[in-house]
Amino acid sequence: MSSPIRIGITGVGKIARDQHLPALERNERFELIASASRNANINGIRSFDTLDAMLEGAPELDAVSLCTPPQVRYRQACAAINAGRHVFLEKPPGVTLSEVEDLAERARQTGVTLFASWHAREAAAVERAREWLGSAAIRHVDVQWREDVRTWHPGQQWVWQPGGLGVFDPGINALSIMTRILPNEFFLERARLEVPENCQAPIAAELDFTDAGETPIHADFDWRQTGPQTWQITVETERGTLLLEEGGSRLSIDGEILIDGEDVEYAGLYRRFAELIDAGQSEVDVRPFRHVADAFMLAERIVVAPFDE
Amino acid sequence: MSSPIRIGITGVGKIARDQHLPALERNERFELIASASRNANINGIRSFDTLDAMLEGAPELDAVSLCTPPQVRYRQACAAINAGRHVFLEKPPGVTLSEVEDLAERARQTGVTLFASWHAREAAAVERAREWLGSAAIRHVDVQWREDVRTWHPGQQWVWQPGGLGVFDPGINALSIMTRILPNEFFLERARLEVPENCQAPIAAELDFTDAGETPIHADFDWRQTGPQTWQITVETERGTLLLEEGGSRLSIDGEILIDGEDVEYAGLYRRFAELIDAGQSEVDVRPFRHVADAFMLAERIVVAPFDE
Repeated sequence: MSSPIRIGITGVGKIARDQHLPALERNERFELIASASRNANINGIRSFDTLDAMLEGAPELDAVSLCTPPQVRYRQACAAINAGRHVFLEKPPGVTLSEVEDLAERARQTGVTLFASWHAREAAAVERAREWLGSAAIRHVDVQWREDVRTWHPGQQWVWQPGGLGVFDPGINALSIMTRILPNEFFLERARLEVPENCQAPIAAELDFTDAGETPIHADFDWRQTGPQTWQITVETERGTLLLEEGGSRLSIDGEILIDGEDVEYAGLYRRFAELIDAGQSEVDVRPFRHVADAFMLAERIVVAPFDE
Repeated sequence: MSSPIRIGITGVGKIARDQHLPALERNERFELIASASRNANINGIRSFDTLDAMLEGAPELDAVSLCTPPQVRYRQACAAINAGRHVFLEKPPGVTLSEVEDLAERARQTGVTLFASWHAREAAAVERAREWLGSAAIRHVDVQWREDVRTWHPGQQWVWQPGGLGVFDPGINALSIMTRILPNEFFLERARLEVPENCQAPIAAELDFTDAGETPIHADFDWRQTGPQTWQITVETERGTLLLEEGGSRLSIDGEILIDGEDVEYAGLYRRFAELIDAGQSEVDVRPFRHVADAFMLAERIVVAPFDE
């Protein structure tokens, strides 16, 4: 058994408390020893106001998790990498593709582990779906990712600002699963974004992708869904239809449920982060984020009714 | 002297006739033997209606230049790479980053040369500017790329459609020079796009980039400039001010003109393409295109007066 990885966390907000702290608590490879946050402390560990103060005040730190908003993530990740610490990035890994590529290069040069995490990929049924599709001839893919923004982002104005990504904030989770389970690279051919007249970011997106074999791959992201929420991917193949539901935790083939799992996403992310550190590797798969950038670049924009909470 | 590279050209339109044919004529490493175009022939060489017909009908072809619109470039490049031909891509190399990355991977696997060309990088003074900046501490960068769209794209509706890139069609030339001459990677922090109320694509863009050292890098792209046209990059350094004008063909340091060159861009591109083929290498630098995608993703959009020709 290796010695524990001493880790610090920045940005002690909702995602840190709901997901990161419980996952770190249950993973014995990690020892949480410090936090950096302007307004919040974690009981029982050393607290700092800023990441820089934490890096200086806790020199025994091996790694940091960045749970701050994406707008400040580049500078924080740069500082941590330059200080020789392994870095865990929440999703999305930044606000531009260019800065994420630069971070990946810096991690390579410094020899630390950089992990750009995609939590939806760790949902209980995703790996089984990937394995099943590995040998399948795919005819058609349909993605429905429809939820109620008022439930999931109450009062969060930043999601509508430039750089906030709008409906791609949940949609990038679908893209992270699609890029993981589909055996061939795909790319956007046509896109339509619906943007409320009082917002900068889209509230809905219709995306038509294809691949080198001209497989039709359709995705429908919508933030206006009331009632039951839908996060599902249907893949029709020549040997049956795969249905991944509940954000990737339930898998059926031709209507037969094979997996209906618990929420194990952050446990899986920290297991992966430890594996990468132990192997001296990084994992920075920008493809989900690149598809989002492609959509903003290629899409037709339609102005729709204003959004009011 | 190696045997000539037998090349075919697809898309016999304005850019092919103005630039590619004269450059191929003057470069003795290439022998133009075929063309593929729906509506145009080139005197004295075999003409085909489609790329597929050319690949089949001219099996001795070593390479193809794709001068077709970016919307069809992926399928054409795929077909040429799969047929074992080296490929020259006009700029921009596609309509999405994802498809360009896929092409690069296919070229790697097949062992052919893929060259994503950026003609502005071959302007007469760009390499000297790059060398001069290599050792300079940069304080500030200012880019002015202002031209009259009515002069340069008369009646071309596609530049305003989704995927047409708008003012980034010339602006990507500035970005291709910036990514070549500036010694450090930079990335967007803030952007503002002005979009005519009857168009999908921007007519102007204000871009604020920075780098790991927090250097301010400002770019101003505008398609509404009448009178004298401006394509210039100013770089203030601790040992003087570099000014690159006329799209990269004129270089001054502190007001003294060092280079004021002819248009040598496509001659340089084909020299480079031959070098890459001879060395068995590819060159696919997506950074200029990635900055454009980042801008579309991160920008605030302002609706401005309708554009009418």
